Amino acid sequence: MNNFTFFSPTKFVFGKGVENKTGDLCKQFGANKVLIVYGGGSVVRSGLLARVEESLKTANIEYVEFGGIQPNPIDTKVYEGIELVRKENIDFILPVGGGSAIDTAKAIAVGVPYEGDFWDFYLGKAKVKAALPVATVLTIPAAGSEGSGDSVITKVDGMNKLGLGSELMRPKFSIMNPELTMTLPANQTAYGIVDMMAHIFERYFTNTKNVEVTDRVAEGLLIAIMNEAKKVVANPQDYEARANIMWSGTIAHNGLCGVGRAEDWMTHCMEHEVSGLNDKIAHGAGLAVIFPAWMTFMAKNHPYKVAQMAERIFNVEHVGSDEEIALKGIAKLREFFAILNMPKSLSELGFVKSDIDTLVRKFHQNNGEKIEGVYYTMTPEVTRAIYEIAL
Amino acid sequence: MNNFTFFSPTKFVFGKGVENKTGDLCKQFGANKVLIVYGGGSVVRSGLLARVEESLKTANIEYVEFGGIQPNPIDTKVYEGIELVRKENIDFILPVGGGSAIDTAKAIAVGVPYEGDFWDFYLGKAKVKAALPVATVLTIPAAGSEGSGDSVITKVDGMNKLGLGSELMRPKFSIMNPELTMTLPANQTAYGIVDMMAHIFERYFTNTKNVEVTDRVAEGLLIAIMNEAKKVVANPQDYEARANIMWSGTIAHNGLCGVGRAEDWMTHCMEHEVSGLNDKIAHGAGLAVIFPAWMTFMAKNHPYKVAQMAERIFNVEHVGSDEEIALKGIAKLREFFAILNMPKSLSELGFVKSDIDTLVRKFHQNNGEKIEGVYYTMTPEVTRAIYEIAL
Repeated sequence: MNNFTFFSPTKFVFGKGVENKTGDLCKQFGANKVLIVYGGGSVVRSGLLARVEESLKTANIEYVEFGGIQPNPIDTKVYEGIELVRKENIDFILPVGGGSAIDTAKAIAVGVPYEGDFWDFYLGKAKVKAALPVATVLTIPAAGSEGSGDSVITKVDGMNKLGLGSELMRPKFSIMNPELTMTLPANQTAYGIVDMMAHIFERYFTNTKNVEVTDRVAEGLLIAIMNEAKKVVANPQDYEARANIMWSGTIAHNGLCGVGRAEDWMTHCMEHEVSGLNDKIAHGAGLAVIFPAWMTFMAKNHPYKVAQMAERIFNVEHVGSDEEIALKGIAKLREFFAILNMPKSLSELGFVKSDIDTLVRKFHQNNGEKIEGVYYTMTPEVTRAIYEIAL
Repeated sequence: MNNFTFFSPTKFVFGKGVENKTGDLCKQFGANKVLIVYGGGSVVRSGLLARVEESLKTANIEYVEFGGIQPNPIDTKVYEGIELVRKENIDFILPVGGGSAIDTAKAIAVGVPYEGDFWDFYLGKAKVKAALPVATVLTIPAAGSEGSGDSVITKVDGMNKLGLGSELMRPKFSIMNPELTMTLPANQTAYGIVDMMAHIFERYFTNTKNVEVTDRVAEGLLIAIMNEAKKVVANPQDYEARANIMWSGTIAHNGLCGVGRAEDWMTHCMEHEVSGLNDKIAHGAGLAVIFPAWMTFMAKNHPYKVAQMAERIFNVEHVGSDEEIALKGIAKLREFFAILNMPKSLSELGFVKSDIDTLVRKFHQNNGEKIEGVYYTMTPEVTRAIYEIAL
């Protein structure tokens, strides 16, 4: 086990009706004037925005609305938000929505007190030293952004997705009402489930030895997510299953599953190129295609941990080689993704063989020519082999 | 799943040599003058106290030593500490040790800014509204006090153990070096392992339905603790196993395993009477006796969750009645406690039949005549039946 620091100071307020506590919580955390960051019309239509605003009014907190954030959020909205916050003397950023609204809010939060271009942080040219406080009202579980210090934004110029992590971007509090997720369309629900599983897998697949406690926690979470996901597919109005899924999304990504171990994240990086090339593709859909492909390559070349997953999570019998055991586990994972009606291949997502050159090129442009993934070294040959399995 | 708030803002700094960061962390959290609360000579002999003090000196932080805290910590030391802090204008409390030092430190922290008797908080006569900041250097994993807002102190007058919980008592940071636990005697190590398992069981045994995620996390933790404990028994110098155990102790008790569910704690309350009557009995030893007895009673009267434990944690086959399955699981838990060389009964701890009257009487004196445990209602008849199984 490696030395580590675990710090998850976000206050999670979870359950039915908790959005009505937004104003009190904002007050408790020192807000005077709030920027409400949100996406399309669904938070308006559902009445959520009105309830949040009512709660702010009751607590005597001013607010400014800032809507129109799209999935795979882009930098132009970040610039617009920074300008608005400066103009309006806003001191607190409150995204109401899913990962896109929250990630945009975080980018605005670090951009406001910085004199240069906020991209400097995401490009590694500058280090975050200050940020406005952020808190969230979560409507789409999965991104885990409500409990993490991470943000991913798409640079419109070049359509690159770039990520940033900073403790200063961790939300002060996150309001999580599972009822708000009950009207999510089936595909969005499913994308989220895949994404939270991937957040666990990226930490689970490590070469750091002697991490039994965190392995077992991760395995327990993955089993629970799949059990509850099947209930949600059968009955989208199942509050209890929605609640279990929503909370899983948070602990999948607040750092708990990554303590004491190197984390991989190669699959996420590979997926970012997929949805980066076509912003109609949901991150979760891309992951559902890439993760089994990545695992299949690893089953051949580096099977140990994939085999452990197969045995402990999918109850595959300990018979045959690690590769055989691993492949049986991957088959079961694919069966589960099929229940979620996820795409099975890049072809299904509209990619053709010649696109692989672009994917490989962009992956290594963004991540380096040879990347020491903590589980396996990624060279262009490896990346290509995995994208080809995914095709 | 019930509505809940989960807030675990403690910064956990974990790994080899991390005690050398004490000074920097104290500075970061605003300390000027620190009270170092510790127990006997072991932190002196091991050189830990000197390293912590060196680190404080390097960071230009003043400190005052306050030693002599005993297991099952008592109120006289709390009063003494409060007086010392007031006299010396100390603004930060730093226990270096295990649960006893930390629990004493928390009592001092809430006692200092309060005009009345600190017992008012523990007796429910007053609510904690202010506390000095506390941070810990942990040497004995188990109590979980390094990541919780809880404290248990023994009232010398009457030998009652009383507990208090307050968010204001949560440590700002906790320094956790598993190397420090490698010289712990085998019995203390074992008591700690039982205690952390009990912290999970108290939350696991609930009648709150639809808590799959937290159940699975709890089960994963329990499996991991038992696996790693066996390694520690075989080789007390196994750093990796010690590290896994130490971290388990924290997440067993920082609230994660209790989200969204009612918690029981009847077994802890029953054990408090046991070690309250004889302060030579370690809390963990008492729990190793009481928990299997409690489970055996529940297997007969309310077996569902005990049977789930048996199947998911101890791989008991799903054959026979819930009671039969549950009893097989309890037998396996007893086998594990035997590996740890734990006492098997109250008799082994020196109790005789007539002591049961006293235990039952004190339990209900402290907790009420009829207590709605979240898993089973505790009447004097039930309490007696469980203590009798334990005898």
